[in-house]
Amino acid sequence: MASTRVLILGAGMVGGVMAMDLASERRFRVTVADASAEALQRAKARMHGRGATVQADCSNPKEIKALAASADVVLGALPSRLGFAALRAVIEVERPYVDISFMAEEALDLDRLAKKRGVTAVVDMGVAPGLSNLLAGVAARELSPCRTIDIMVGGLPVERRLPFEYKAAFSPSDVIEEYTRPARLVEGGQVVVREALSGIEPVDLPGVGTLEAFNTDGLRSLVRTLKVPTMRERTLRYPGHATLMKAFRDAGFFDPTPIMVRGVDGQSVGVRPLDVTHRLLFPKWSYGPGERDLTVLRVEATGLVDRRETTLRWDLLDHLDESTSATSMARTTAFPATLVARLILSGKIDAPGVLPPERLADSGPVVEGILDGLRKRGVNLSFEVTSE
Amino acid sequence: MASTRVLILGAGMVGGVMAMDLASERRFRVTVADASAEALQRAKARMHGRGATVQADCSNPKEIKALAASADVVLGALPSRLGFAALRAVIEVERPYVDISFMAEEALDLDRLAKKRGVTAVVDMGVAPGLSNLLAGVAARELSPCRTIDIMVGGLPVERRLPFEYKAAFSPSDVIEEYTRPARLVEGGQVVVREALSGIEPVDLPGVGTLEAFNTDGLRSLVRTLKVPTMRERTLRYPGHATLMKAFRDAGFFDPTPIMVRGVDGQSVGVRPLDVTHRLLFPKWSYGPGERDLTVLRVEATGLVDRRETTLRWDLLDHLDESTSATSMARTTAFPATLVARLILSGKIDAPGVLPPERLADSGPVVEGILDGLRKRGVNLSFEVTSE
Repeated sequence: MASTRVLILGAGMVGGVMAMDLASERRFRVTVADASAEALQRAKARMHGRGATVQADCSNPKEIKALAASADVVLGALPSRLGFAALRAVIEVERPYVDISFMAEEALDLDRLAKKRGVTAVVDMGVAPGLSNLLAGVAARELSPCRTIDIMVGGLPVERRLPFEYKAAFSPSDVIEEYTRPARLVEGGQVVVREALSGIEPVDLPGVGTLEAFNTDGLRSLVRTLKVPTMRERTLRYPGHATLMKAFRDAGFFDPTPIMVRGVDGQSVGVRPLDVTHRLLFPKWSYGPGERDLTVLRVEATGLVDRRETTLRWDLLDHLDESTSATSMARTTAFPATLVARLILSGKIDAPGVLPPERLADSGPVVEGILDGLRKRGVNLSFEVTSE
Repeated sequence: MASTRVLILGAGMVGGVMAMDLASERRFRVTVADASAEALQRAKARMHGRGATVQADCSNPKEIKALAASADVVLGALPSRLGFAALRAVIEVERPYVDISFMAEEALDLDRLAKKRGVTAVVDMGVAPGLSNLLAGVAARELSPCRTIDIMVGGLPVERRLPFEYKAAFSPSDVIEEYTRPARLVEGGQVVVREALSGIEPVDLPGVGTLEAFNTDGLRSLVRTLKVPTMRERTLRYPGHATLMKAFRDAGFFDPTPIMVRGVDGQSVGVRPLDVTHRLLFPKWSYGPGERDLTVLRVEATGLVDRRETTLRWDLLDHLDESTSATSMARTTAFPATLVARLILSGKIDAPGVLPPERLADSGPVVEGILDGLRKRGVNLSFEVTSE
């Protein structure tokens, strides 16, 4: 008896895996909305006939509102540029929401509106941001004081192929954006800004070997929500990638400012180097069908527990699921969101407002619900405590 | 009493140093020809008022012939694309010629014409090709048999700056051409083709430290003129450069085939990735005024001397000359040519035909004349023989 109505906005890689996960439970009546009939077809296949699809323009808040009004919970898996408007639309029709869109805008700007409307909207609820924030929140709670939080995350191809040893499991332009946007870190309690791709450092990770970590702008809400004097988020790649990307960036190949070059007809034309780079790199950075990816996440925090210097460390390593062909990126991004949707439906998460994941960390049952749900889906997280 | 008339085609960096070197001897009446008044002005300054300049279009064989007809010897320091036509023009007016233009065409195709006209034309007479060929020729003569010849050469900035640790002392497009054109090597007596930038290997060189050597297409005439079963020419750079250039090349940034990208006006435009790369890289690869460069050349040959396994090794390391601001590239390219011009004038080189430098190696006085002349100009070459 499917009595609970679930709406998923976006039928891409992540939306499809959200649909697969939720439609597997008979109590949910899942509807997936997307503009692309092809994407909807793929999502339908993932649901094995147990869910509905609807062709809709998710860049139009009116269409989102019309669909969301009748849903018990809404999940957002839209491209980042559509995320903010969708969040506002769902809040305005007063439906609970879980989003993974990685919007550039400040989601917390809608916190007052959400509170006023009594809406629970959990944002950034993927893997990182997402699970990483939740674990950072747990660390900030368990350690008193919590002195440092160090998050490292990467999505990588299993098969390493030179020169890049990299493929993008999400939009390659967001990857290049990550390599250019200055990274905000917290040092000595202050927000400091470092060049993206700076601070390259080798890191050994269990099951993966040596990767390199470098500064990227990934702390997002943590900068504001946690009072931890030292925090940083770094991206992980196979060694050498960051230096290569730095060369491309520093030579101007990621510049959005047009330059004049000779066109094919001999006339001078203005082009953005970034557009040329997109055209050349993206085909090389795309995963082929069934090509295996992996996701690696480490959250490490230090501080005191009963006055003893203590380190908490979580390690996640996930691979493409051969049985469903769901990429690791899609799995680790979709499952935290579907688990939070369940926790909202069961009333375990009910605070009104726009909530980044670290705000969920105070509730033991919520944290356990998410970590246990991940474990059941084969996403394993190891946890280690060391004390002096 | 300036009685010997010398014509220099091209007043660029190399032509200017040729002019400086020859005008310093009162017996030469030097004339430098170039289309650029500015370049001629700089060449004039290099000659301290001892030479003449003439504005001429060196892409026009008729203008070259008119100027060359009255010269006792002609030196060519033109861009590579003008080299072949200039060579033919000088042969046709039956003047002795020494060229460093690194033309893409096969200079030896004009050998019959030169012989018919009784003209001595020494081509590729710079540092590499040039001095490298001469030393290869010496090795092939001294060793019997000569089994291997290994040439390594590089022009580098003294100050190493990431990401490229490279600047181009000659045309940057010729450098990129070098990174894309398949490299011809000789193995087992056969010409084999390797990808450019392949076979990257660290090499320790005295006074420079560790560089990397990789295959480029530099043997040129040696493939045909020497019967040595194993020969290769490699380019030297600071370690890491080749891998970086391989990434740019393999990702398509050196492709001359147009791709369609979004232009500044939003319309789709066709551009060659290579043109975009030129525009972005060349300003970064240019030497600033007075910026120090170095040239490193190693020629190593193995074979038998009196039935004993013997290795001959020449090492050259040259720097920018602070007193004249002549770059090392210009010095090491210009001086071999001016020394050969003198040897032609003195009758020590008189064979008719188009002669690559290895053809000069049979004459002890010619080889000594060149090496001794380089030494006097501060270009030092060390030589080492080791026998088992």
